[in-house]
Amino acid sequence: MKDKGKSVRIAILGASGYTGSELLRILAAHPAAEIAALTAERSAGKPIEEVFPHLWGRGLPRLVKNDEVDWSGIDFVFCALPHGTTQEVIAALPRHLRIVDLSADFRLADVETYAQWYGHAHRAPELQKEAVYGLTELARAAIGNARLVANPGCYPTSAQLPLVPLVEKGLIDADDIVIDAKSGVTGAGREAKQTSLFAEVAEGINAYGVANHRHAPEIEQGLSAAAGRPIIVNFTPHLMPMNRGILSTIYVRLANGAALGDLRRTLERAYEDEPFVRVLPEGMLPSTRQVRGTNLCLIGLSKDRVSGRAILVSAIDNLVKGASGQAVQNMNAMLGIDETTGLGIEPLFP
Amino acid sequence: MKDKGKSVRIAILGASGYTGSELLRILAAHPAAEIAALTAERSAGKPIEEVFPHLWGRGLPRLVKNDEVDWSGIDFVFCALPHGTTQEVIAALPRHLRIVDLSADFRLADVETYAQWYGHAHRAPELQKEAVYGLTELARAAIGNARLVANPGCYPTSAQLPLVPLVEKGLIDADDIVIDAKSGVTGAGREAKQTSLFAEVAEGINAYGVANHRHAPEIEQGLSAAAGRPIIVNFTPHLMPMNRGILSTIYVRLANGAALGDLRRTLERAYEDEPFVRVLPEGMLPSTRQVRGTNLCLIGLSKDRVSGRAILVSAIDNLVKGASGQAVQNMNAMLGIDETTGLGIEPLFP
Amino acid sequence: MKDKGKSVRIAILGASGYTGSELLRILAAHPAAEIAALTAERSAGKPIEEVFPHLWGRGLPRLVKNDEVDWSGIDFVFCALPHGTTQEVIAALPRHLRIVDLSADFRLADVETYAQWYGHAHRAPELQKEAVYGLTELARAAIGNARLVANPGCYPTSAQLPLVPLVEKGLIDADDIVIDAKSGVTGAGREAKQTSLFAEVAEGINAYGVANHRHAPEIEQGLSAAAGRPIIVNFTPHLMPMNRGILSTIYVRLANGAALGDLRRTLERAYEDEPFVRVLPEGMLPSTRQVRGTNLCLIGLSKDRVSGRAILVSAIDNLVKGASGQAVQNMNAMLGIDETTGLGIEPLFP
Amino acid sequence: MKDKGKSVRIAILGASGYTGSELLRILAAHPAAEIAALTAERSAGKPIEEVFPHLWGRGLPRLVKNDEVDWSGIDFVFCALPHGTTQEVIAALPRHLRIVDLSADFRLADVETYAQWYGHAHRAPELQKEAVYGLTELARAAIGNARLVANPGCYPTSAQLPLVPLVEKGLIDADDIVIDAKSGVTGAGREAKQTSLFAEVAEGINAYGVANHRHAPEIEQGLSAAAGRPIIVNFTPHLMPMNRGILSTIYVRLANGAALGDLRRTLERAYEDEPFVRVLPEGMLPSTRQVRGTNLCLIGLSKDRVSGRAILVSAIDNLVKGASGQAVQNMNAMLGIDETTGLGIEPLFP
Repeated sequence: MKDKGKSVRIAILGASGYTGSELLRILAAHPAAEIAALTAERSAGKPIEEVFPHLWGRGLPRLVKNDEVDWSGIDFVFCALPHGTTQEVIAALPRHLRIVDLSADFRLADVETYAQWYGHAHRAPELQKEAVYGLTELARAAIGNARLVANPGCYPTSAQLPLVPLVEKGLIDADDIVIDAKSGVTGAGREAKQTSLFAEVAEGINAYGVANHRHAPEIEQGLSAAAGRPIIVNFTPHLMPMNRGILSTIYVRLANGAALGDLRRTLERAYEDEPFVRVLPEGMLPSTRQVRGTNLCLIGLSKDRVSGRAILVSAIDNLVKGASGQAVQNMNAMLGIDETTGLGIEPLFP
Repeated sequence: MKDKGKSVRIAILGASGYTGSELLRILAAHPAAEIAALTAERSAGKPIEEVFPHLWGRGLPRLVKNDEVDWSGIDFVFCALPHGTTQEVIAALPRHLRIVDLSADFRLADVETYAQWYGHAHRAPELQKEAVYGLTELARAAIGNARLVANPGCYPTSAQLPLVPLVEKGLIDADDIVIDAKSGVTGAGREAKQTSLFAEVAEGINAYGVANHRHAPEIEQGLSAAAGRPIIVNFTPHLMPMNRGILSTIYVRLANGAALGDLRRTLERAYEDEPFVRVLPEGMLPSTRQVRGTNLCLIGLSKDRVSGRAILVSAIDNLVKGASGQAVQNMNAMLGIDETTGLGIEPLFP
Repeated sequence: MKDKGKSVRIAILGASGYTGSELLRILAAHPAAEIAALTAERSAGKPIEEVFPHLWGRGLPRLVKNDEVDWSGIDFVFCALPHGTTQEVIAALPRHLRIVDLSADFRLADVETYAQWYGHAHRAPELQKEAVYGLTELARAAIGNARLVANPGCYPTSAQLPLVPLVEKGLIDADDIVIDAKSGVTGAGREAKQTSLFAEVAEGINAYGVANHRHAPEIEQGLSAAAGRPIIVNFTPHLMPMNRGILSTIYVRLANGAALGDLRRTLERAYEDEPFVRVLPEGMLPSTRQVRGTNLCLIGLSKDRVSGRAILVSAIDNLVKGASGQAVQNMNAMLGIDETTGLGIEPLFP
Repeated sequence: MKDKGKSVRIAILGASGYTGSELLRILAAHPAAEIAALTAERSAGKPIEEVFPHLWGRGLPRLVKNDEVDWSGIDFVFCALPHGTTQEVIAALPRHLRIVDLSADFRLADVETYAQWYGHAHRAPELQKEAVYGLTELARAAIGNARLVANPGCYPTSAQLPLVPLVEKGLIDADDIVIDAKSGVTGAGREAKQTSLFAEVAEGINAYGVANHRHAPEIEQGLSAAAGRPIIVNFTPHLMPMNRGILSTIYVRLANGAALGDLRRTLERAYEDEPFVRVLPEGMLPSTRQVRGTNLCLIGLSKDRVSGRAILVSAIDNLVKGASGQAVQNMNAMLGIDETTGLGIEPLFP
């Protein structure tokens, strides 16, 4: 496929947000990707550089409305629309399209759980059944065959990659997991909200969505599957005065006489062939600086001074492995091409 | 005493660091404080504005070496020297001086614990016996009578204020406390270290000192006293890309059938007459923005989705309630004047 | 007046923006100020802590609509409303009120110039005639007698304080002035605009409003008055990734054989008795860090390597001397009380 | 050459600074580059990830001392050492090596000027004669044949690219140029200096090196050559609270009846075939956000309200086009391979 040049004609729906812009950055380096259509309902008609000046001079298509797209000229869709509206948009797309959806609309397999957390019945329950949850490293085979992939949330990616293998092996007490997560501001999107203003974010930190953030059921879905029974976790997100990055500090209780070395070996084995997930050596814990702009997920482990406990720390770039990078990784897996195509591992530091 | 004007002649030892500079900011608004001497070993001989240009034109004394100070002209000493060197300096001071020490040297009552964490035997064990641990709200009477007050660490202040009353009442399981703490960079001091460079700190976050930070035994000392038995906690500090502020997110397990309301009521009662410690109403959690530049400690409580658990969040300015502000509060208590003198509660926002 | 305690009953119109919040911070330390009313059209009915959580627990009045205020209980008004709407609001206020207006509505004495820059005829031209332009140091006498003071813009304050004395004395060529100004983000207000989002501001800089910023005619009004003839300047503002502060780097050509020393001496004399404007000694240039949270304006001078030229640098906090601090300074001048009342000079550093 | 794979064996001298790290980031994407040696005098013996944790797991060579390198295995050298020490190091290298020097040591063709600004006689004046000043777009032919290229300074790159074509054509008055330049902190290097600490840089701005910055003579060298006579400019650098980026706002006087359109057309023509230098369309001015992580130099032009004047704004990433990116661009030019190899134009935004 790569021999044929720009052979995958791509549409990005909702191209005026940060995940849209990040998809364009990544796909610019992807040898198979041709950007064929960009949509943005409110900015339709404008050149993309009017909403993203940094994209000036790239020769990208003008923004159009969703219903102006000629779908016959499109092979692959990245859907970066707000949750809630996405499910109907995707339900209306022609069936020849393969889709990675970056919204939350198809992440929760149980539509009851969806309704409970999102406040309305799911509007495309049939499509939900078809959707594959796209945490690439943990669902590669299913993703390869999927037509519709639900790209994981940023926090759930950072939490599940270190936790799932440990819960699966029963090495930690799945009923005693505390996830203290810290995210850069781009996680809140590009909408003009007072809480995202520089003056409200810089030089301060705070917790938010405590005990009711919508990423909690997504994390619990993955851990429950791993445990084989319903799991509830503490998940407490915090807003950080920085653009990109999620650091999840995860406090766990060792199970069944397990030792820290068992956790380390299990994670090392789980990810030994993975290009993007890396378990750091003993004594080293990750910083978000080490993943900025990359599709990496770095995982470190530490003993806890409290006996019988351990600490896991994971770092991702919320816009890359936590969103657009994993979306492209999923596209690569769906197309059967090298999963690393277009995806970097060299962070922009500083 | 206030009637007599600038009646307390103050020396600040180690005036060239951030806590020294912050003492000068606070004392400039203190009606009883006369700055009589400023010391800085390496910068001795320079005017203070050479190390702190923002203090230009204040008519402050020139920096001198410690041994150049005429102690007969001094009533009160703030010691802001590095730990390790402080104990000998204070031991050599005349006995008429009352002292608040901002270093870690006299915080740990048990000199064995000190030796274990600081790597050398304590050099002034007799003086250690005399020192009072100055978490003002929890030791006011002893502070009033003290000659030497050990000003608490920034993290320990943020952790103990919410935890001590709950542990004392037995409302939480003191063996299952996770303190995920996040601090601005001034906590690392003004020393020129690569890890404190703007380019190494901005736009990224990381944990540090995991399972071996020296503030852990200080927190445990307070909680052990409250519990009446030895307590070990998880304490995990993180470096934040901001100047000031500590947010401690504290994960606890409810004990003995206690409910979240019991925790709230206990904290409200403990601090109802306190000018600086405030328990926020239900549904509100603190941000470090709300305390910047003030001596406040704000405490919020939240239920945890995990049954039988709760979340406490405290916010302080590490340079004020976490250092120089509490030091002045302690001086006020020692001098028997209104504890709020010179200390603000209006944050600089944004 | 200060003997009577909280004797000035104050209303703040438009209290939900940053200048409103900053007025509350400053007035909390003002012995004569009683906050009697706070208005905010869209947030009317809410407690102030709902829009400003950092003001929780201060016992401030609830936000009301403008027309709900009982003006008979008010002595003094700070008007912090958006420009354009302000002129009609103030025109409708009872005449017993004395007013400092922080908007741009009454700054330009010439209503033709106003119409040209703001796109509509002035709606209160009679009131405009009455208004006094409140650059305190340069118009103290008129301010003392004024009923309505137009508080200067932030950039114009930072530019006029160093320039007006030099233009008056004819020491610089008033036709060859380049003002390169750099401002923190709070200057853009608290409105939820995409261009003010953290992710659009942090880690980057840009010029804006080049050759058409509305503060240019305000600066030119002051310099023209000083020169006695119409002056046009280059004024180029830049957006900085920080909350507070304006640094204006001003490039001038020496006139009439003047030397740098003449400029320095003229500025030193002009401000020698001023509590807030300070000319730094030779070899020292100001940083915005040195004025954060204060009402100071620091001015430094430097030779230029280009013969016959010089460089002036001024630093203010845009929310204090550039807005709410100068507004309180003006109130003090209007009330005949010590101009420094409530206003600090100790910056929050770092 | 590209067909042969990793065919250029590269040594980076002084690999422990930000330009060293940035070279490694760029060269990781360069198909011809093999990193054969990395030196760092003080960190010799350590793996590179000990000084740069973000480079963990890349399989890079261990840091060695300069004199431990086997030069016979090296084809190409990037020298990222401090100025002053560089000239002797390079003088001692074998002649088969081609070199791009990122220090200031070989930038000033006139060794008298060097001595005047650097305070000592040049220690390799013969080598200085051989060195080619590597502003790639303006000296491509000479660079192609050079053995030793002096990579330009960051500020001089941002100033000369917009100015040189205009001075050459005589469109602006070369005696009336004001360059107000604003740089991110990485420009100060990775040395642990108090002035580069987060707490000394964040939330504030200041000018520095006013009228005596060493980049002034470098800019003047380029403009003097363009003008055919000695030119002195005003160059005033400012420190910005951000990691990367330089914005130069340049104030010029139009010459000889030239109009703004003439300036625009001249710059458009000068750079129409350049992959990295782009003149923005009318009404658009660059931000450093648009170049972060790229080798781009964006140039915008604006009229000035002052008659007969104009404003130029240029934006670069100081670590890329201002240092390591241009260094690789120069290497490409020296090797006769596509100049864009390894060099991106898609910024990391936000």
